[in-house]
Amino acid sequence: MHPLMMGSLSWVEYQQRLQDGNAIVLIPCGALEQHGPHLPLGTDALLSTAIAQSVAEQISGIVAPTVSYGYKSQPKSGGGQHFPGTTSLDGNSLIQMIRDVVRELARQGADQIVVLNGHYENQWFLTEGIELAVRDMGSASKLRVMRVEYWEFLTENILAQVFPDGFPGFALEHAAVMETSLMAHYHPKLVRLDLIPDVPPVEFPAYDVYPQRPEWVPASGVLSSAKAATAEKGALMADHLTRTIAAAVQREFQLSSALAASNGMAALR
Amino acid sequence: MHPLMMGSLSWVEYQQRLQDGNAIVLIPCGALEQHGPHLPLGTDALLSTAIAQSVAEQISGIVAPTVSYGYKSQPKSGGGQHFPGTTSLDGNSLIQMIRDVVRELARQGADQIVVLNGHYENQWFLTEGIELAVRDMGSASKLRVMRVEYWEFLTENILAQVFPDGFPGFALEHAAVMETSLMAHYHPKLVRLDLIPDVPPVEFPAYDVYPQRPEWVPASGVLSSAKAATAEKGALMADHLTRTIAAAVQREFQLSSALAASNGMAALR
Amino acid sequence: MHPLMMGSLSWVEYQQRLQDGNAIVLIPCGALEQHGPHLPLGTDALLSTAIAQSVAEQISGIVAPTVSYGYKSQPKSGGGQHFPGTTSLDGNSLIQMIRDVVRELARQGADQIVVLNGHYENQWFLTEGIELAVRDMGSASKLRVMRVEYWEFLTENILAQVFPDGFPGFALEHAAVMETSLMAHYHPKLVRLDLIPDVPPVEFPAYDVYPQRPEWVPASGVLSSAKAATAEKGALMADHLTRTIAAAVQREFQLSSALAASNGMAALR
Amino acid sequence: MHPLMMGSLSWVEYQQRLQDGNAIVLIPCGALEQHGPHLPLGTDALLSTAIAQSVAEQISGIVAPTVSYGYKSQPKSGGGQHFPGTTSLDGNSLIQMIRDVVRELARQGADQIVVLNGHYENQWFLTEGIELAVRDMGSASKLRVMRVEYWEFLTENILAQVFPDGFPGFALEHAAVMETSLMAHYHPKLVRLDLIPDVPPVEFPAYDVYPQRPEWVPASGVLSSAKAATAEKGALMADHLTRTIAAAVQREFQLSSALAASNGMAALR
Amino acid sequence: MHPLMMGSLSWVEYQQRLQDGNAIVLIPCGALEQHGPHLPLGTDALLSTAIAQSVAEQISGIVAPTVSYGYKSQPKSGGGQHFPGTTSLDGNSLIQMIRDVVRELARQGADQIVVLNGHYENQWFLTEGIELAVRDMGSASKLRVMRVEYWEFLTENILAQVFPDGFPGFALEHAAVMETSLMAHYHPKLVRLDLIPDVPPVEFPAYDVYPQRPEWVPASGVLSSAKAATAEKGALMADHLTRTIAAAVQREFQLSSALAASNGMAALR
Amino acid sequence: MHPLMMGSLSWVEYQQRLQDGNAIVLIPCGALEQHGPHLPLGTDALLSTAIAQSVAEQISGIVAPTVSYGYKSQPKSGGGQHFPGTTSLDGNSLIQMIRDVVRELARQGADQIVVLNGHYENQWFLTEGIELAVRDMGSASKLRVMRVEYWEFLTENILAQVFPDGFPGFALEHAAVMETSLMAHYHPKLVRLDLIPDVPPVEFPAYDVYPQRPEWVPASGVLSSAKAATAEKGALMADHLTRTIAAAVQREFQLSSALAASNGMAALR
Repeated sequence: MHPLMMGSLSWVEYQQRLQDGNAIVLIPCGALEQHGPHLPLGTDALLSTAIAQSVAEQISGIVAPTVSYGYKSQPKSGGGQHFPGTTSLDGNSLIQMIRDVVRELARQGADQIVVLNGHYENQWFLTEGIELAVRDMGSASKLRVMRVEYWEFLTENILAQVFPDGFPGFALEHAAVMETSLMAHYHPKLVRLDLIPDVPPVEFPAYDVYPQRPEWVPASGVLSSAKAATAEKGALMADHLTRTIAAAVQREFQLSSALAASNGMAALR
Repeated sequence: MHPLMMGSLSWVEYQQRLQDGNAIVLIPCGALEQHGPHLPLGTDALLSTAIAQSVAEQISGIVAPTVSYGYKSQPKSGGGQHFPGTTSLDGNSLIQMIRDVVRELARQGADQIVVLNGHYENQWFLTEGIELAVRDMGSASKLRVMRVEYWEFLTENILAQVFPDGFPGFALEHAAVMETSLMAHYHPKLVRLDLIPDVPPVEFPAYDVYPQRPEWVPASGVLSSAKAATAEKGALMADHLTRTIAAAVQREFQLSSALAASNGMAALR
Repeated sequence: MHPLMMGSLSWVEYQQRLQDGNAIVLIPCGALEQHGPHLPLGTDALLSTAIAQSVAEQISGIVAPTVSYGYKSQPKSGGGQHFPGTTSLDGNSLIQMIRDVVRELARQGADQIVVLNGHYENQWFLTEGIELAVRDMGSASKLRVMRVEYWEFLTENILAQVFPDGFPGFALEHAAVMETSLMAHYHPKLVRLDLIPDVPPVEFPAYDVYPQRPEWVPASGVLSSAKAATAEKGALMADHLTRTIAAAVQREFQLSSALAASNGMAALR
Repeated sequence: MHPLMMGSLSWVEYQQRLQDGNAIVLIPCGALEQHGPHLPLGTDALLSTAIAQSVAEQISGIVAPTVSYGYKSQPKSGGGQHFPGTTSLDGNSLIQMIRDVVRELARQGADQIVVLNGHYENQWFLTEGIELAVRDMGSASKLRVMRVEYWEFLTENILAQVFPDGFPGFALEHAAVMETSLMAHYHPKLVRLDLIPDVPPVEFPAYDVYPQRPEWVPASGVLSSAKAATAEKGALMADHLTRTIAAAVQREFQLSSALAASNGMAALR
Repeated sequence: MHPLMMGSLSWVEYQQRLQDGNAIVLIPCGALEQHGPHLPLGTDALLSTAIAQSVAEQISGIVAPTVSYGYKSQPKSGGGQHFPGTTSLDGNSLIQMIRDVVRELARQGADQIVVLNGHYENQWFLTEGIELAVRDMGSASKLRVMRVEYWEFLTENILAQVFPDGFPGFALEHAAVMETSLMAHYHPKLVRLDLIPDVPPVEFPAYDVYPQRPEWVPASGVLSSAKAATAEKGALMADHLTRTIAAAVQREFQLSSALAASNGMAALR
Repeated sequence: MHPLMMGSLSWVEYQQRLQDGNAIVLIPCGALEQHGPHLPLGTDALLSTAIAQSVAEQISGIVAPTVSYGYKSQPKSGGGQHFPGTTSLDGNSLIQMIRDVVRELARQGADQIVVLNGHYENQWFLTEGIELAVRDMGSASKLRVMRVEYWEFLTENILAQVFPDGFPGFALEHAAVMETSLMAHYHPKLVRLDLIPDVPPVEFPAYDVYPQRPEWVPASGVLSSAKAATAEKGALMADHLTRTIAAAVQREFQLSSALAASNGMAALR
């Protein structure tokens, strides 16, 4: 059990952290979703948790328990709901879950919160949960919540190193080079490099259709090949993400007012 | 009143259309949201409605009444909730609205439905509304629903013509060249080209923060300049969108089974 | 596009209107519901929108986008849910929709709102949506919301002119003389006078029964004949409604305190 | 405890009634709402219960426990929410309550249900609760639900006897002659005839406004005088209502198919 | 009709009670649930109402209308949902019902409320309803709500007298000695002592399973024999409960601050 | 990462498990709640997860991701909501979460599910979530769900060994001997035996009151002393729980039909 995990702290220790001031709480959000034959169903939760821990180490943050179930997998970003093991929440269930957790943390004075998302399909339901928690707390509250999709912090420079043959876009980066490399770095025992399917990038239509079309998705559930994944690439990305997310969080919560200056934006990426 | 609008048909005429078979109903979804000083608050609803009408003409479709209110505007894609006139729905309200409309249309035999979205922030709440309606109808239903964000049908070729100096990405295309050109084509009287602010593209952090930060967004509400917008570019895009969306809709509903063949995907874009 | 429509204003123009003071926002509410073979499915939305525009012209009001879907059609007032094209919302979906729109308008300072209803079945769900928005805003808010069913402003004098042979009651006035005449005035191209069925007034039991009984309702969907409808009667009613609703709105919002005097009531009708 | 009350039956007795066939369950719905200084807060629940019992006696029906709380009182029909003791439910709470009760009764084979409403403001939320229960049960269910507002069964003939000087309309019949007479008949000990205020009928505007306007309503909460109320008039109405509602219920559930014939309608009133 | 019942008071009388200060409102909560062949379906509602009335007499309290429907019966505490007549609410429906009633009472100044529960399965949904109402009212409110399961006030001394052969635990006290004795005391005409089944106490597994297992439960619905029930035991318990609950309520609302002293706890049992 | 954890399996491995038949999925449910100065906030989640893993080893079960947040802490069972770090869900949020997870697992053929609860306050919201999922799946589904509060499997014999001086009841067993011993067995590094407060058992009133009373609860959050806790007692209980829960699960799912025989009950405890 990681010493930065809120679930490992006694309430007395947590209280002390709040009283010391500047406590930042990170809430990792994942999913239980197919990630091909070579990665586990919990990949999104494992990665968001691992990155949250890495960031927390840099900023003396506290990592709240992971929200391990996420919104419904979509064919074009996660392969879709038909894969055994993909176990998803209705949109409003996820909204209310995040709303409650954020509001509860804020009720006790934790007003610097980072929702760290590792599952593409979660983004807008997390957004609404946060928006509602902020509204619940009222305009007098000091609550500030950052919502981070970790992959948004990967710069062109990093992507060029990870994808020397060209970045296919995050849309197809499901169970592919990025996630597999990060898993190989953070959880090598859970990765079966020998089982990575060698598939060309999937081409999807410009729209979505419901009921979802399993036939749009390769049988493996992988949207573009992870063959080029390595633990070294994972370490490279993990290091970059840790540093840049940690910097953004500190800057955001310490220097809120300075953020308005537009020339401060680039440095945060 | 457009003769393809469902609201203009009597129930007898609508029944006839259903009985003739292959009736396709399009539901335009927009928002009431700031679009800079030069475009009206209803831009997203106007454009999704106009494109739905253009597509309906091609495929003898029927356009259901527009859902004119949408999900909360976000700073990085719509400028944010602080602009006067931006009037938004909670996520679950929009989910339930779409769920009801799709389920009701399907209840009466309209089982080929296109949800045509013109507001970026709507996408995931429309998705959930459709997913729930499909679940409500049960596995025996023949209901199929396409969800279309119209801009996803703009090809690299078209974008190169519209943005000869480089495409800044859809993220910044709020009240900018794409929307302004389309409005100049479809609703020229509602565009004030003389009021287009000349702003550089906004740089945003890689994350979001709540309560939303008005200071991240230019005072005008425009995220990148619309100076290069013209009605001609609007006509070019409108023509392309109409043809490609109409083709995709027809193909999807006519040739559902053939869609499984992966080499059929590219042609749909 | 009407210049009084909120959806046609830029946010800058809307802000100016709010800052000028006394801005009144009208929200037309309709339905997508059968109205016999001679009127379009969108009749309730079209009429509430047209009347809202007429009123707005008198009082420099602003017309928000129409809520085009309404509560489930009932046999005794709208013919019922079995007519193709009648596409309805669940009660709570409509409640939340109105709640959100009213609260959002009020959040930005529009605290004089008129919900103008054109669909009989909407009334109580609109009421609850307004009640909840008022509660959300809190007791310190200056928000005041009028809920208007437009037909309630028809006086005995007007009804006597429109129905020289006796007024059958609003209950049977679905797709009948009142609505057909108003449509012939406001939207003549959407009325097919030649298709008006010649039916005697329907007699209904004193109760309702569920599942709804299609056999209670004439096959045409018309509850009493519209044969006597004319554009002139429509003009007469439209003129009266516009003047009296405009007067009531102005009086209500300008002279709120004076309303308590009971002798001021009659003049408002 | 009345022997027709479901709450007084053992489950064995209730099962026997279901197995005997043709069991009809009545659900009285009321409110806790001011009814002037002379009638108790529970008037609507007491009257709907008393009438349900009277009807049940005629048709060997079973009276389920009364739903004693109702939707928010409105100034023009119930005086409004500002009177102490008026204790109301949100619309959706009432919808879900009725939905559950109807669905649960139907789950066990009670498929002939009468929702007997005594509170004007309840009507549409009861309607939606019933509509949802019917949808929940699916199209294969034999469930049929009647919704009865008891006053709708008062014929012109009866009204002429009760109101020899002219009927002011049900809108103003709150805590007035009808309800007071019925209470004097059913619950004489709960009526304080000496406290009936002598007020002229209230004149209301043609619209509603929120927050509700206490100043629209007489301080007593009575919308038109109950001075003419007598137990004899109550007995007259009670007898008429019992007979006609009982007849309608029996006819509706026994002769469902015959109801389609339009000439059968008038007899049911 | 009991003079302490809120439903029997006029609003003027209720207002007077609130103005006199210290008004305490009790809300009895029951269920419609099988209670063996010898007790009526309404037992839980009848007992919570009777005890609320007895307590109200002692403390000049006011008894609000009974919430007569409760949460789903569970095999191990109430026999389960399969018995005809057991008619239950979904959890959230009950939560919202209690939330509304408590908040509404508090809105008008009744800030000393007792939710008196007579149905084991209700407890946690009542808890949540109360928690939400308290949150709705805000931290400035003086609202205090007690939640009482009446059987928790039976002391070991009393239980020893009622169960001379040993108390089987409240879990099996469904339609058994405690409830039957109390019913024989409060509602003797509704008890059929001759129909009490002579069954040994049921042995249940340590877990629950869903769908519920009817075969776990005796066909009679009785979980342990009520043969030893007498009206005298009922009187003994009723007297004890009335006195101790009344004392606890008065002490709680009068001496709130003193409650913190731990040596004051025992006296309240 | 434990090899029995669903989150560690690839979808292919999980599919294989489902196809092998008899797959049993366990869902551990905990809370983030104060557990005194000597146990971590995540105790309930850690223990339910550890026991689920132990049971899964015995029965080749699969452990789904832990639901780490639970219902609001109550003073008499968990110390209450005022302790820093106690971070709770609204009741309906938890209901919907469990409903979704159970329904999703069942959708893919996992129809033998155990919800293993480690947080007292969760019980009834888990119950409702399961009841709703079972209803969602319909009567044709083979889904069976066990809900286990692990402490219910502690027999009198085991309790006598763990509490040689007498068992104070589960009500006071929060952060006390049972939980501390189990944590000392499963997670010794997270227990601070030196910080166990030496407190007498708390005496609580027979009722609850809201807003919750912090003064009812010892400042430490411990309801009865954990001084007698040892890892050996933890091992004793863990071994017993693992064996008896595993046996009950296997018997329940293998021998469902035999369960109806009442003499089979005792053996399951």
